[in-house]
Amino acid sequence: MRAYDREDLQFQLWDVAGLSDVIAKTDLDRETVNGILDTADQIAADFFLPIGREIDEQEPAFIDGRAVLPDVVKPAVDAYVDAGFIAAGFSPEHGGMGLPETVHQAAAFVFAASNVSLSGYGFLTVGAGRLIQSFGTEEQKRTWLAPMVEGRFFGTMCLSEPQAGSSLSDITTRAEPMDDGRYRISGRKMWISGGEHGLSENIVHLVLAKIPGGPPGVKGISLFIVPKLRIDGSRNDVVLAGLNHKMGYRATTNCALNFGDSGECSGELLGEPHMGLSYMFQMMNEARIGVGMGATALGQAGYQASLAYARERPQGRAPGSKDPTARQVAIIEHADVRRLLLAQKASVEPALALAILCATLVDRERQGDCTVGSLLGMLTPIAKSWASEFCLEANKHAIQVLGGAGYTRDYPVERYYRDNRLNPIHEGTHGIQGMDLLGRKVLIDGGAGFAAVTAAIREDIASAGESDLAEPLEQAVRRLEQVTRHLAGQVSENPDKGLANATLYLDCFGHVVMGWMWLRITLAAIRVAARDGDSDFLRGKHQAARYFYQRELVRTQGWSQTLMSDEASAYDMQDGWY
Amino acid sequence: MRAYDREDLQFQLWDVAGLSDVIAKTDLDRETVNGILDTADQIAADFFLPIGREIDEQEPAFIDGRAVLPDVVKPAVDAYVDAGFIAAGFSPEHGGMGLPETVHQAAAFVFAASNVSLSGYGFLTVGAGRLIQSFGTEEQKRTWLAPMVEGRFFGTMCLSEPQAGSSLSDITTRAEPMDDGRYRISGRKMWISGGEHGLSENIVHLVLAKIPGGPPGVKGISLFIVPKLRIDGSRNDVVLAGLNHKMGYRATTNCALNFGDSGECSGELLGEPHMGLSYMFQMMNEARIGVGMGATALGQAGYQASLAYARERPQGRAPGSKDPTARQVAIIEHADVRRLLLAQKASVEPALALAILCATLVDRERQGDCTVGSLLGMLTPIAKSWASEFCLEANKHAIQVLGGAGYTRDYPVERYYRDNRLNPIHEGTHGIQGMDLLGRKVLIDGGAGFAAVTAAIREDIASAGESDLAEPLEQAVRRLEQVTRHLAGQVSENPDKGLANATLYLDCFGHVVMGWMWLRITLAAIRVAARDGDSDFLRGKHQAARYFYQRELVRTQGWSQTLMSDEASAYDMQDGWY
Repeated sequence: MRAYDREDLQFQLWDVAGLSDVIAKTDLDRETVNGILDTADQIAADFFLPIGREIDEQEPAFIDGRAVLPDVVKPAVDAYVDAGFIAAGFSPEHGGMGLPETVHQAAAFVFAASNVSLSGYGFLTVGAGRLIQSFGTEEQKRTWLAPMVEGRFFGTMCLSEPQAGSSLSDITTRAEPMDDGRYRISGRKMWISGGEHGLSENIVHLVLAKIPGGPPGVKGISLFIVPKLRIDGSRNDVVLAGLNHKMGYRATTNCALNFGDSGECSGELLGEPHMGLSYMFQMMNEARIGVGMGATALGQAGYQASLAYARERPQGRAPGSKDPTARQVAIIEHADVRRLLLAQKASVEPALALAILCATLVDRERQGDCTVGSLLGMLTPIAKSWASEFCLEANKHAIQVLGGAGYTRDYPVERYYRDNRLNPIHEGTHGIQGMDLLGRKVLIDGGAGFAAVTAAIREDIASAGESDLAEPLEQAVRRLEQVTRHLAGQVSENPDKGLANATLYLDCFGHVVMGWMWLRITLAAIRVAARDGDSDFLRGKHQAARYFYQRELVRTQGWSQTLMSDEASAYDMQDGWY
Repeated sequence: MRAYDREDLQFQLWDVAGLSDVIAKTDLDRETVNGILDTADQIAADFFLPIGREIDEQEPAFIDGRAVLPDVVKPAVDAYVDAGFIAAGFSPEHGGMGLPETVHQAAAFVFAASNVSLSGYGFLTVGAGRLIQSFGTEEQKRTWLAPMVEGRFFGTMCLSEPQAGSSLSDITTRAEPMDDGRYRISGRKMWISGGEHGLSENIVHLVLAKIPGGPPGVKGISLFIVPKLRIDGSRNDVVLAGLNHKMGYRATTNCALNFGDSGECSGELLGEPHMGLSYMFQMMNEARIGVGMGATALGQAGYQASLAYARERPQGRAPGSKDPTARQVAIIEHADVRRLLLAQKASVEPALALAILCATLVDRERQGDCTVGSLLGMLTPIAKSWASEFCLEANKHAIQVLGGAGYTRDYPVERYYRDNRLNPIHEGTHGIQGMDLLGRKVLIDGGAGFAAVTAAIREDIASAGESDLAEPLEQAVRRLEQVTRHLAGQVSENPDKGLANATLYLDCFGHVVMGWMWLRITLAAIRVAARDGDSDFLRGKHQAARYFYQRELVRTQGWSQTLMSDEASAYDMQDGWY
């Protein structure tokens, strides 16, 4: 059995997101794209899915300064690399396959649903490599990028330090210029995913550090290429100080790394000095869409596992049944189980639609459309955070469908729940995403980003014809406009107070966007029904949309009231009162 | 550091719940009760809290048919037993200490906050022993109850079978009368907590089974005492078939047990034939309050851990701060962290108030007050389920406060989150509690239970004077009355459809009850302030109540609308549409 619904993925790509428009400007055709997804599907089924439990139970071990993973990991990662899924993410001019981001993310969804923590290595390598692709010298591209594209070297992003996680302005890692143009790196990095392992010939760390004498805070941060092994093959002074023991996501090693403890760590500046954070934001923005996609994939995997269980597990009878000797029914016959399944579907499918939409916007930007940047900027924190929050909730429901069985390792749903709990934390916490949305994205360019979102939603509303989703969505958008004006004013006046409810604003905004995604999905369902005839598959879209509007979109009413009322109980709370 | 707030526990017992009134009818005084809690506190601190991580990492092993726990478990359990906390739960006439249930539950809270899965053994032994206390013969009490009171024998409740979990009418374990008056037991039981271990001299299983020839369904279920070792010390035919590998709650072994595989399993009937399920409900109702208390304790432990972290961990600056060289602030200075902490406090404290209130009702019933039964019956599913759902949510917030650190085993919060995920499942799932509330408790006795709840809430509203909680709570109660009338009518007409939204009704009802608990807590805070003067501790109660009313109680508006609108998307959903 697959950990995801292939029919839905096809529908989402071709019918909801209009992937045909994206590939029209490439030399790909539909058949080729589907072939790529078939390959992803096969590798995921053969290598990723079967070892999910094993890599969870045998967490990476710290042995003689190395991070040792279970033996089953390398063949799986090799299969992924050999099939070209790392090369897929890079431009042809650098040896890559130049796959549209939408197709690349669709494949990422397949791999993440099948084994999220294995998929981390490719994800990180593409992210790091793209930074060199964008900002590196020709020599850096030859030396470091080329073997990353080939999948021989893997990449990492080294941002956090023990005293600086969400607050990157406080990093203290130093980079001192040396005579040969390189830099001597010294400092300690924390929470480095893929920071050490034996899966690739080399590891290329992209490290944020400060060149002495630069400006304070984030304006003095530069970005460095710091390899595990130097060009000559000798060991650079990068030492694995320890591994974190995580509740999930275990096959992605998570490392404390010491740079230059012996004074022998050398690195190369990437791009211009003091531009490190803005470069890194390119990677972080793509990574945030990727995190949203991973969270969605875990939600999907839990949904599929619990749906299969609910169809097979007999238990009890309908409340109205009076005959205790009647056969037990499958638990999907119980209304509350149907609710737990529908709640998962109602969260997972629009989250996928949003992640794919973001990927199509990335493609349009790359294809030269400079009108979509502000829309993408607004949707990125939502794609990251909404899926992290509500697909985690979906995983909670998946466990509940299985009952006691779901609480055991005999079924994968408890593992998905543990894996997914990471997603509201890494790549900017839920709270940080709210600050990014309300404290930055909503305010910049005179509110152009917010206007782009509402315009895009209203474009779909205008084409919604008789859909009974159009009116409640329009009302939700109006409420969001009112709330946004109100909060934007507050943030300008008093940022501390104005941003105090940024997380609630993020959730509220996210629900409106998901209402929009359900409109897009149902409009696509109507188009497909007109073309191919109606089907159970398409009826399910309308029913899940109905559930979402009646049980979830309505929450934006209460949230809007709270946000308009300047609710400040947390803001006013004093330390001594807890 | 304690895993709970002792000052709050004292306030809850004496000032909110009025424990003085309960103990006025006993020979206990306040000093003695506080001494008992001091003892619990000491044992919890010395034995329970320090081994939390170890017993989680070394889950019980199945070796040669035995369940082997880490060596640290037995001394901890022994300390608990030796201090009398099992005897505390039984009547003096059976050798117990006859502690009021309120004090017994308060001690249970202390132990569960400090190590929930260790506390399971005492909990189960008291529950099982009380059934023998209530329904056993004098000989059964001498033989089985007496050593349980002494803590030499432990107890279990064996209900579920592989094919019968939530649906107990489908159990197939057989009990055939033998010539000596005993019964030959044969069948397989699943999910048996404490079903096998080496912590006590013997294990007394209370087993649901069917005597051949009895009525079908639940009316043919009887209850049996089936010991691991027979009276003569020989091994009964009860075999550990396997251990479940759980995501948490690990020191409580969870077992598959085979009874009578060799035809040699003997048991004694407890009470009358075919009365088993109604007997067991006595235990289940107490167990449900206990589960709610355990869920609350885990919520409390996460709250305390994250509060301590937030006060110590420096990170970042206020959004309005422009100087990147200024000192970092403790994260409790960030409004969103204060929200995450306040949300935990706002859930954990009223959940504790409700569990304690239920315990005082049990005491009043035992003391002969026959007016409180229907109120207790109504509140029991809420005490069990609300804490299980919303204190789990609190544990999610606790992880978020710690960020990446919270995702690792270096801190206990991820373990609390894993432990607490069990609580919405065992002792009747969240969905089952909703059916119990709406399908049974609301309907029986002409709605007397529901009337008892609203009368009790209005009694507190009437004494609320100028409190600004009174009006919104009264409105919430009126909405709940309207919803209840509407749904009760539906359930009578069409139980399948009427009960389809029972879980949402349960959550909505629970939020109203928690609004009530916050009113009770703040009224107590006003009384204490008048007596002892105001304090930061008391101000915190008002602030958390404000948070709960503005962020949580308001949710009952949307839920009520949904319930009144006969929202049926899940009910109408078809299998093929998923």
